[in-house]
Amino acid sequence: MASHDSLTALFEPQSVAVIGASEDRLRIGGRPLDYLLRAGYAGAIYPINPNRASVQGLPAYKDIADVSGPVDLAIVAVAAAQAPAAVQACADKGVRAVILFSSGFAETGQEGAAVQASLRQIAQRSGMRLLGPNCLGVFNARSGFFGTFTAALNQALAKPGPIAIASQSGACGGHLAYLCAQRGLGINYWITTGNEADVQLAECLLWLAQAEEVKVILAYAEAVRDGETFVRALDLARRNGKPVILLKVGRSKAGARAAASHTGALAGEDVVYDAVLRQFGAWRATSIEQALDIAYACVAGIFPASPRIGLITGSGGIGVQMADAAERVGLDVAPMPESTQGQLKELIPFIGAANPVDVTAQVVNDMSLMARCIELTLAEGKYDSILVFLSSGPSIPTVAASLLTMFAPLRGKYPERLIVLSMAAPPDTVQAFERIGFPVFEDTDRALTAIAALTQFGDSFRRQPAALKLGAVSAAQELLPRQLDEHVAKRILGAAGIPSWPETLAADPAAVRAAAEAFGVPVAIKIASPDILHKTEVGGVALGVADPAQAQEIATEMLLRVGREKPLARITGLLVSPMAQGGVETICGSLRDPVFGPVVMFGLGGIFVEVLRDVAFRRAPFDEAEAMRMIDEIRGRAVLNGVRGQPAADVGALARVLARLSVFAYERRGEVSEIDINPLLARPDGVFALDALITVA
Amino acid sequence: MASHDSLTALFEPQSVAVIGASEDRLRIGGRPLDYLLRAGYAGAIYPINPNRASVQGLPAYKDIADVSGPVDLAIVAVAAAQAPAAVQACADKGVRAVILFSSGFAETGQEGAAVQASLRQIAQRSGMRLLGPNCLGVFNARSGFFGTFTAALNQALAKPGPIAIASQSGACGGHLAYLCAQRGLGINYWITTGNEADVQLAECLLWLAQAEEVKVILAYAEAVRDGETFVRALDLARRNGKPVILLKVGRSKAGARAAASHTGALAGEDVVYDAVLRQFGAWRATSIEQALDIAYACVAGIFPASPRIGLITGSGGIGVQMADAAERVGLDVAPMPESTQGQLKELIPFIGAANPVDVTAQVVNDMSLMARCIELTLAEGKYDSILVFLSSGPSIPTVAASLLTMFAPLRGKYPERLIVLSMAAPPDTVQAFERIGFPVFEDTDRALTAIAALTQFGDSFRRQPAALKLGAVSAAQELLPRQLDEHVAKRILGAAGIPSWPETLAADPAAVRAAAEAFGVPVAIKIASPDILHKTEVGGVALGVADPAQAQEIATEMLLRVGREKPLARITGLLVSPMAQGGVETICGSLRDPVFGPVVMFGLGGIFVEVLRDVAFRRAPFDEAEAMRMIDEIRGRAVLNGVRGQPAADVGALARVLARLSVFAYERRGEVSEIDINPLLARPDGVFALDALITVA
Repeated sequence: MASHDSLTALFEPQSVAVIGASEDRLRIGGRPLDYLLRAGYAGAIYPINPNRASVQGLPAYKDIADVSGPVDLAIVAVAAAQAPAAVQACADKGVRAVILFSSGFAETGQEGAAVQASLRQIAQRSGMRLLGPNCLGVFNARSGFFGTFTAALNQALAKPGPIAIASQSGACGGHLAYLCAQRGLGINYWITTGNEADVQLAECLLWLAQAEEVKVILAYAEAVRDGETFVRALDLARRNGKPVILLKVGRSKAGARAAASHTGALAGEDVVYDAVLRQFGAWRATSIEQALDIAYACVAGIFPASPRIGLITGSGGIGVQMADAAERVGLDVAPMPESTQGQLKELIPFIGAANPVDVTAQVVNDMSLMARCIELTLAEGKYDSILVFLSSGPSIPTVAASLLTMFAPLRGKYPERLIVLSMAAPPDTVQAFERIGFPVFEDTDRALTAIAALTQFGDSFRRQPAALKLGAVSAAQELLPRQLDEHVAKRILGAAGIPSWPETLAADPAAVRAAAEAFGVPVAIKIASPDILHKTEVGGVALGVADPAQAQEIATEMLLRVGREKPLARITGLLVSPMAQGGVETICGSLRDPVFGPVVMFGLGGIFVEVLRDVAFRRAPFDEAEAMRMIDEIRGRAVLNGVRGQPAADVGALARVLARLSVFAYERRGEVSEIDINPLLARPDGVFALDALITVA
Repeated sequence: MASHDSLTALFEPQSVAVIGASEDRLRIGGRPLDYLLRAGYAGAIYPINPNRASVQGLPAYKDIADVSGPVDLAIVAVAAAQAPAAVQACADKGVRAVILFSSGFAETGQEGAAVQASLRQIAQRSGMRLLGPNCLGVFNARSGFFGTFTAALNQALAKPGPIAIASQSGACGGHLAYLCAQRGLGINYWITTGNEADVQLAECLLWLAQAEEVKVILAYAEAVRDGETFVRALDLARRNGKPVILLKVGRSKAGARAAASHTGALAGEDVVYDAVLRQFGAWRATSIEQALDIAYACVAGIFPASPRIGLITGSGGIGVQMADAAERVGLDVAPMPESTQGQLKELIPFIGAANPVDVTAQVVNDMSLMARCIELTLAEGKYDSILVFLSSGPSIPTVAASLLTMFAPLRGKYPERLIVLSMAAPPDTVQAFERIGFPVFEDTDRALTAIAALTQFGDSFRRQPAALKLGAVSAAQELLPRQLDEHVAKRILGAAGIPSWPETLAADPAAVRAAAEAFGVPVAIKIASPDILHKTEVGGVALGVADPAQAQEIATEMLLRVGREKPLARITGLLVSPMAQGGVETICGSLRDPVFGPVVMFGLGGIFVEVLRDVAFRRAPFDEAEAMRMIDEIRGRAVLNGVRGQPAADVGALARVLARLSVFAYERRGEVSEIDINPLLARPDGVFALDALITVA
């Protein structure tokens, strides 16, 4: 990845050339010129067109080489066949960044991909940055730089504002820009990355995360190519208190993948995206509308300190609807303090005072009652967010006027509280409430989803994780051998702080007997071999052996049977361990995600993973607090509290093991491709690996 | 319940008196008069006001008794204290229906409830129907009858149209009316039922289900009082091909109830509402906005014959977003036939031809390509619904014009296909597309949720269940005794067609031994007593008894132990049965829902019910097809297909048992309050009750 400065030339150029500049303001080569002129872009504009003396009123150049001054950025709007020469000419001229609109490259097949690779080489050799090909370009509404041909600006250019949009899809980026404009949201930066020959989405996000003028980042991704940079971008945005709202599409394909039956397949990329976004505090929007709802609500920059929400309504029915929805999105409809309830009842005898606060139809006659209820709720309710349902009341001009007077002072008086209004009213009325600082939603459910998202951001911004102490828990410094038997795997994990159930590696059946005597019966006996992954299938497991003499016999038979089944397998001995009683069987492991690298998985054993796909993922490494959130995510979580009379498992120890596993998997990511601890027995007195497998890359 | 005609006087009155008529058009007694006059209501209007000669320009009467002609309906808008006298005066006058606006009755406590009961008595004695109290009244936009004081009509009266709204909450009803108007949806009937002293929501729904002028029913409910009528209304609406969209609030309270641990508590009312609505084809909307989205899309009256949906887009990215969302809401993004894909590729070389059909940016230059792609998709794709994403293209007037020309003939050419458009454009552009017959949604996810709802309606309308043969399977005609031991319960269920695992009721330990010899070991032994519900707790169960002599011994000890623990229990013997190997443990039963009567529950045993609350409900009685849908609803459904090498269970037999249980529970609803079959073992060779409990009311 190149430095920030190289992207600055792309987003904030001082001079722009348009290669393939067209007189026709609706053509691809004409639109950017038209937009630049309409926006009053202050930098130099150089239309390049060998056939014309001027384009759209500006003097034209036959070739970019003919431009006398330096050129910060060149827009290339020519057919695919002419693109390599044009990009080379830019490099020769010393252009710092190129936006390549042309399509017909990697998206068309191998031949196009090869040409695209050559474009990338031109860029990399010269240090010039290349956006695209097959992209709709960039705009920066602050400086009036509109290096795009999106039709979404046809009717009106975007106005500047706190939103930044980064999209791999040009059409989707254009659509988002149009919708932002409809909602009155200004956009400072708008970037579409297309085929990503050089500049990728992740790098753009990182740039936006550090850009001061950006308050909210709205992104659309089909596939992240550089997971490491992507995660750095999310982390920087979080540290800078900037919400990232991501539309990551492709869930349904992953759904199909997740239907596959083995554990590895469960790590279909989509669930990993889900986990990483959650882990780093980004919001994965389920729809474009939801993404815009949340971006809109984020603009005020108030991120609630807790999920406690107060609901105020003039309709008891809508109050119940709001309470249902609030609970569904994870907000806490905590009751009003008793004393405040008393005060509210003094104001309005039949008020619903608990929460939702149902001010009843009485407020229609005396609006000051409404004001006092809201004031009391804010002053005494300790809610970090408030949703006030006003129905279509504000559609009546006199009602709107008195509500505006009532609400105007509240924003300044309670600057830390997120106060959202729900009303059905004409746009100019809604805008009047927006102007005095209140986000307005027609639908209460959409308002509550946005509030939940802002609350998640608030939680994430406040929870700045301390840097993990890497190297500390992973004491297993020995080089991993190519293949590991269960016993070695457990020893290595043990050194990394992951305990195993007691066991002895017995060299022969007599030693098995001795071990059974030492542990006390019943015992389990398992074959130990780096060459046998599925011990049960070759008759290499015996459970509940109730007698030492019988243990010796069974061991003898097992060696014979395994010898017949797997004559070439190296047998390192027989593992003997006392039978584990009680506890909850869980599964954990690590695998290498193609985008995000080592990822840790956790679930409960049996049908929870096999039938219900009830698993949680996190990108490694992470700390115990994150591991605890991971454990809390699974649907079967209650099993760990003890069901059917079982005692509760030591969930703290479980979190410790997951965090340690994550550090181990991360530190050894060069050697280890997969770790599978199945089962990991979670007992009241700790957690213990009963079996473990480490696969070396 | 009274006849339809009595409600007709409420919804279609020929003459209206307003008791408490006010000159002030904004007061409760003034608004209905104002609305009636503004609407040009054609019937007679009689303001009743003892203090004025005229009200709002109409001659006023001192008392309703002074009106010379008949009065169909009276609106009572007086203080609570005056309401009983006013309602009595109406009854004396022979008024057919009263709308009582006044509040201050059951919602305020016991005293108010008593007055409300007296109002009900006045109505019932006279045969006069009473709507309210504490309601916002009724309107009928077709006839201009506006018997309401809702402020939602303050700015504009509702226009007539295919929607009917019935709401227990007046404020919510008003809000829905306002939102319908905003979306250009006309309302023929609007009813708010308030405290429901006499007229209830369910009866109103039944009336609307038969009313010809109603095409779509939108309802808001907090608590259904008359479950039987409610179900009849849903059933009639389904038979008449009318979609019912219900906002049933109160989920979150039920959520808390569902957290309780025993099976009975799982039948928290809310899950039963969910089940009944699904069973009778109504759509339970999660938000007000969703309810309106669906009502809006229903108006065209096209309900897809299958979930197959074709997605057409000019943005590949939005195409993936649409495919994700379609899959999430249960639609089938089936691929285009190969031959059609070939034809599409001939039109546009880089088209995404499978489905979503990505027509690429090329259509911007040649709109006729778009037309031909849509035509091919409709003609050859066999999709019952189509969603076309047009982004903000139609915001450009020339683009809108050519799209309108292109789409205009399609509606007539494919009358059975649901064709929905997604665009971001100014309201007048959107309305132009609506006028030529296409529902328009800005957001693709909202469009897809609406399409999914219409597809569910289509499925429900086509699936007219045959009448169940009651009495046929329930041969157990004997009167149920007050208390039933397990053996008797199984015998009764057996007569109803629900098989049990083989067992013998042994009179004494020697007979237990004989039974064990006859069955072959291992066997299970259980105490049989109508007085012992929890056999394990008193040591009344022994499993896996491996030897007949031991069986006799164990039986002897069991009788002694139980005799000590429960000296007063009547012991009817000892149940002996062979141990059941394999199969899937399931749970089923019936219970009496306070609203809907006997309800059948089904789930998998163990953690599925206890931890995951993974259960399905249906109102009894139902057929095997419905039982199969019920089985398919549980999350752990795959377990019945066989996991971990187990063979598949006989799901057909399971459905048969659930259907028979439902018929039995329904027929015996007078006697039986609860049935608990736990476990019901589902094996490849059939399903068998291993234990059963029938609780008699």
